[in-house]
Amino acid sequence: MTTMMRAEIAEQPAALRATLDALLPRVEEIRALAGRTRQLLFVARGTSDNAAVYGRYLIEARAGRLCSLAAPSIATTYRRRVDLDGVLAVALSQSGRTEEIVETLAWARDCGARTVAITNGGPESPLAAAADLALCTEAGEEKAVPATKTYTTQLAALAVLALGLGAEVDAGDLDRVPDALARLIDRPGDLDAVVEGLAEVTGVVVSGRGMAFSTALETALKLKEACYLHAMGLSYADLLHGPIAVVDELTPALLVAAGAGPTLAGTVALARRVTGAGARAYGVGGGTELAGAATAALNGPDLPEWVAPMGLIVPGQLLTEALARRRGLDPDSPRGLNKVTQTG
Amino acid sequence: MTTMMRAEIAEQPAALRATLDALLPRVEEIRALAGRTRQLLFVARGTSDNAAVYGRYLIEARAGRLCSLAAPSIATTYRRRVDLDGVLAVALSQSGRTEEIVETLAWARDCGARTVAITNGGPESPLAAAADLALCTEAGEEKAVPATKTYTTQLAALAVLALGLGAEVDAGDLDRVPDALARLIDRPGDLDAVVEGLAEVTGVVVSGRGMAFSTALETALKLKEACYLHAMGLSYADLLHGPIAVVDELTPALLVAAGAGPTLAGTVALARRVTGAGARAYGVGGGTELAGAATAALNGPDLPEWVAPMGLIVPGQLLTEALARRRGLDPDSPRGLNKVTQTG
Repeated sequence: MTTMMRAEIAEQPAALRATLDALLPRVEEIRALAGRTRQLLFVARGTSDNAAVYGRYLIEARAGRLCSLAAPSIATTYRRRVDLDGVLAVALSQSGRTEEIVETLAWARDCGARTVAITNGGPESPLAAAADLALCTEAGEEKAVPATKTYTTQLAALAVLALGLGAEVDAGDLDRVPDALARLIDRPGDLDAVVEGLAEVTGVVVSGRGMAFSTALETALKLKEACYLHAMGLSYADLLHGPIAVVDELTPALLVAAGAGPTLAGTVALARRVTGAGARAYGVGGGTELAGAATAALNGPDLPEWVAPMGLIVPGQLLTEALARRRGLDPDSPRGLNKVTQTG
Repeated sequence: MTTMMRAEIAEQPAALRATLDALLPRVEEIRALAGRTRQLLFVARGTSDNAAVYGRYLIEARAGRLCSLAAPSIATTYRRRVDLDGVLAVALSQSGRTEEIVETLAWARDCGARTVAITNGGPESPLAAAADLALCTEAGEEKAVPATKTYTTQLAALAVLALGLGAEVDAGDLDRVPDALARLIDRPGDLDAVVEGLAEVTGVVVSGRGMAFSTALETALKLKEACYLHAMGLSYADLLHGPIAVVDELTPALLVAAGAGPTLAGTVALARRVTGAGARAYGVGGGTELAGAATAALNGPDLPEWVAPMGLIVPGQLLTEALARRRGLDPDSPRGLNKVTQTG
């Protein structure tokens, strides 16, 4: 059986190539708009919010600009003006039609911000129309409810945004991303073992740090949405500040890291701590070091840390799709969810 | 059996009174320091991070200043300078000794920020010593591992901070807080019913919006720490963006709201949605409206929305303490946790 979700996972290399081809020529436009700003404010919910977390770490760590994640209720519920002079507000919405996000971006503009939209809804979408600059991803139509290719193309748009903000990165690394994803989809590692390991659990903790924190959050959201798992996405540090108590024989940890970078050593140490306490730690990425410390491991992409999150989510997507089927669920249509979410 | 946690819950009215007495005279000092800044950056982890979420909503909604929650790994792992000119960095740590938080506040100062410490560790603690201004809470020594009085006194310090930032609130409301908590501790509502309702579940979703979002996060953290529940703290909007799928017959929702304010109606509607879908929704606060829509309800404080979070957490604390005992656990000493958490 091939699900729509599985098909859309496989479409990501082409979607990323198309998105990068469309957006890389626009770096100068971003630079011109951002030149009058000092910091960023991301506006997003759900999967798009997880993408924003990637943007936040990337742009702080590599471009030195302070980033915030907006609390939309300040705009939509409290209706309070906040001083946003010098702020570049970046709203992300797969559909470009979530009213709360459109309204919050309009609020940001009214408060003095410059505005960017990142959406797969096209230039005619309400979100794109509300922004000074629209970066439209080229994922094509996404039919499965759990977002896959619209998420990874959002990450690509954020990577291009970072280039426009002067991030100290090698832009050429982006060229390697589509092929790295294609290889990963073909060779995901020990997927069957991890699916079996999670087949009967009710909960899982997903952890990652720095740029991989976004991947942990998004992997947890996928497992919640499509597998109805009590999946908690936590940073490495937040996990140690309390919730480590929930990791036990019945609640394994999924630990995510790029194959290199300053967060890898801590993630490997966490895997040892979890397995040392008698619980299971499944690795996602992190190369041979993390795989060696883990109960079983899924491969990560062969990519530098700053672009790795575009690939690091792929094992989580494949796991979600296979685990949902293993648990007798339809990953394409989880209960209670629609493709365009409206929040009042 | 009286646990240390239960005793410390009962000490909160006195701890809040002492903290407010100590800090209210310092509003002018805060005003002087903050006068040269435009926005805030909170630095915290765990329970203190949940307190920061309260500060963030309060200060954005009532003082119109943009607030961010810092990603400490930018300072401690990536070691990247970020432009923090015009920023007031506010670090919160119960002990004042968590190295990551001290290090991140020092980083913020080096990046150009003015700095405030909120701690129960006293003026000699490393965090207080590292800050331009230290707001020391007067909770006294806290012995139980799950933080209670150190959390609510942090909220009081943040309320005083908001006064110094010119928040449009009635400062006299703070005087009502200690007595409101005392009444709530005496009359928590239908605690036995909620304890029994959660006695056998493995997971619970805790949701609140706006200023009550902090309470949802902190209630979830308490239930994770001391009851080993898979408790997810989510904003109302984020819950609708995916994880609503996990609420079912076996996974109830705990819904938190102040007795009045712009988020109440949405929380009542969410309770109806959850019960309408055949799941249980337990109310926390929200007055008769939320109680009427809920399966069972815990009382909230009789306080205006902006100070309500100091009382809204109390039912969650009482629930955590009683539920831990009901599940055969010792709430004072959860496994895997120490009082001062160090994260590498």
